[in-house]
Amino acid sequence: MIDKPYVAGIDIGGQTSKIGIVDARGMVLTQTTIRTDSHTDVSLYINDLSEALTSLAQNVGGLSKIRGIGIGAPNGNYYTGTIENAVNLIWGGKNVIPFAKLFNKKIGIPVALTNDANAAAVGEMTYGAARGMKNFIMITLGTGVGSGIVINGDVVYGHDGFAGELGHTTSIRNNGRLCNCGKIGCLETYASAIGLARTAREWLESSEEDSVLRDISEDITSKDVFEAASHGDPIAIKVFEFTGKILGEAFADFVAFSAPEAIILFGGLARSGDLIYKPTLEHMNKNLLPLWRGKIDIVFSQLKESDAAILGASALGWEIK
Amino acid sequence: MIDKPYVAGIDIGGQTSKIGIVDARGMVLTQTTIRTDSHTDVSLYINDLSEALTSLAQNVGGLSKIRGIGIGAPNGNYYTGTIENAVNLIWGGKNVIPFAKLFNKKIGIPVALTNDANAAAVGEMTYGAARGMKNFIMITLGTGVGSGIVINGDVVYGHDGFAGELGHTTSIRNNGRLCNCGKIGCLETYASAIGLARTAREWLESSEEDSVLRDISEDITSKDVFEAASHGDPIAIKVFEFTGKILGEAFADFVAFSAPEAIILFGGLARSGDLIYKPTLEHMNKNLLPLWRGKIDIVFSQLKESDAAILGASALGWEIK
Repeated sequence: MIDKPYVAGIDIGGQTSKIGIVDARGMVLTQTTIRTDSHTDVSLYINDLSEALTSLAQNVGGLSKIRGIGIGAPNGNYYTGTIENAVNLIWGGKNVIPFAKLFNKKIGIPVALTNDANAAAVGEMTYGAARGMKNFIMITLGTGVGSGIVINGDVVYGHDGFAGELGHTTSIRNNGRLCNCGKIGCLETYASAIGLARTAREWLESSEEDSVLRDISEDITSKDVFEAASHGDPIAIKVFEFTGKILGEAFADFVAFSAPEAIILFGGLARSGDLIYKPTLEHMNKNLLPLWRGKIDIVFSQLKESDAAILGASALGWEIK
Repeated sequence: MIDKPYVAGIDIGGQTSKIGIVDARGMVLTQTTIRTDSHTDVSLYINDLSEALTSLAQNVGGLSKIRGIGIGAPNGNYYTGTIENAVNLIWGGKNVIPFAKLFNKKIGIPVALTNDANAAAVGEMTYGAARGMKNFIMITLGTGVGSGIVINGDVVYGHDGFAGELGHTTSIRNNGRLCNCGKIGCLETYASAIGLARTAREWLESSEEDSVLRDISEDITSKDVFEAASHGDPIAIKVFEFTGKILGEAFADFVAFSAPEAIILFGGLARSGDLIYKPTLEHMNKNLLPLWRGKIDIVFSQLKESDAAILGASALGWEIK
C-alpha cells in the first residue's frame, strides 16, 4: 500500500474552478466545481476551495491520501507560487497574491502552482500525447493562445517564472491587430478562437462571396466558422487556411528556438482536426530550415477535454519534492 | 597540485582553425593556428590538428595536463559529436563526420563538440558577461547571425542537437530577402554584417541623399557603414537604426520564449556600441509584454575578441563528465 497514492488538481478559471483527485494512471477519481467569482477577498475564496477539496477527499479516504496539490491559474508563477496581476480573477486585480503559500497554510498539503498552459504541458507529458517526450511545445488554442515549453523534460519558466508567452510573439508586424496586451500583431489575435472568428467577420465584410456565414444574425463564433468549413463553405475554409498559415509560420520560429520533437495542440480550435492541422503543418514545413523539414510532428492532445484542466494541474502535484 | 589543470579549445573555421590551452580562470596560456582547408580528407586534417595540439601542449607540460578538449565547429552536434553537412568546410561537404570520436581516438583525451555560437554561450557563462546567469541568450553578429540559448544553466540543444538557430527566424515575411538557407526574410539577412552592408547599398541606390558612403568605390562593407555612422553620416546612422529595429523586434519574441535575464551580443557588429545598442534596446522594449518592459538587459560580450573563439570552445572541455 502506498501511503499517499493520489494528487489533487485545481484549475482556476475566471468564473469557475475545477477540483479533482487523480491517481498515478491519470484517472480522475472524483471531481467538483466551485465559483471563482463569489468573493472579492481571496481568503474567502481559499476557504471555499479548502472546504470543497476536503469534502471531495472523503470519496477517496480523506485528505491524508493526497500527496500534493497542483494548481493551474492565470498568471501563476511556478517559482514564487504567486498569482500576479490576474485581471480576469475577481480577487486577482493588480496584486501579487502568494496563493500557493496561503492555500498550503490552510490545507496542510504541499502546493505547486503554475499558469494553465504550463500545467497542460506537464499533464500531457505525464498522462497524454507527450509521454516519453523530453522536448516539445504545448500550444493551447482557446479564447487566447497559451504555451508551455518543455526542454529536456522540464517546463521552461525562465529567469522570472513567466517564460513561454508564445501567444504574444508577433505574427503580423505592419497593420497587425491590436492585442489585449497592448502590442500589435500578436499570434493570439489571429490564432485564438476569437481571432479566427474575427478573420471570418473581416473577410465577409470585405468581399461579396457567398457564404452560409452571412445567414448568422449574431456575432459569428469560431464554432460557426468550423461548422461552415466542415460543410464546404469556401470562405470558412479559407479562414482556416489563413489561421493555419499564421500558426505554421509561428511554429517554424519556435522550432528554430528549441528543436522540439513535436508541437502539441490543445483547446477548442485543436478540435477542428484537418481544417487547422493541414495548413499549419504545410506552412510550418515551408518555413523550417531544411534540416527540420518533414521531421517535426504536430499532434493533438490526448487528454480528455473534460478532464484535461484537472489532469494538467494535478500532474504538478507529483513533481513536488 | 591538480593533476590535469587545463583544457584545450579548438575553433574550426572555414579557412583556419584556432587552437589554445586555457586555465580555469580563462587565461589562454598558449595558442596557435593551422589551416582548415589544406586537405579534402578529414583524417589528414585530424592528423594536422593532433600534431599542432601535441606540440602546443609542450608549453604547459604535455598532453597529460589537459583534462578535456572542447571544439566549436559549424554544424557541430553536441549529442553525437558529429559535424553534419558543413558546406563551408572543405572536408565537410554533405557528410556526417563523427569528428569528436575520430579526434578522441587520435589524441586520447575526452572531446566535446558543438557549434560555434553554442560554444560562445558556454564561454560567456564560464568566463565572461554571463557569469552567474542561468538564463540568457547569446547572439553572435558576424557574417551570419548565430545563437546559443542557455536555460537553467544548460545550453539548449533540442531533441536533435540543432536547437538555437535564431538567425533563421523570420524577420520580414513579405518581400523579405532570400537567405542562404533557402528561406525568405531570415533575421540573418538583415542583422549580420553582410545584411547591414546590403541595407546600406540598397538605400543608397533608392535615394538621392548625401552620404560619404557614395565615395566608396568597391562594395560597401559593414565597417564602412560603421565609420560613416560614427562620423555622423545620416544614411549610415539610419542603417544602424533599421538594423537595431529588426534585432530588437526579434529579441522581443525570443524573450517571450525563454524569459532570459539578458541577451548578450558578440561579434563584429556588437563592436558598434551605441549605434546598434540603442535602437535594439528601444525596439525590444517596444515589443515586449508589459511585464518584461525595461527589465531585460542587452549586454556586450566580455570575452577578448582575439581569445573568444578559443575560450568558448575550451569552456566545453570543463563540462565533460
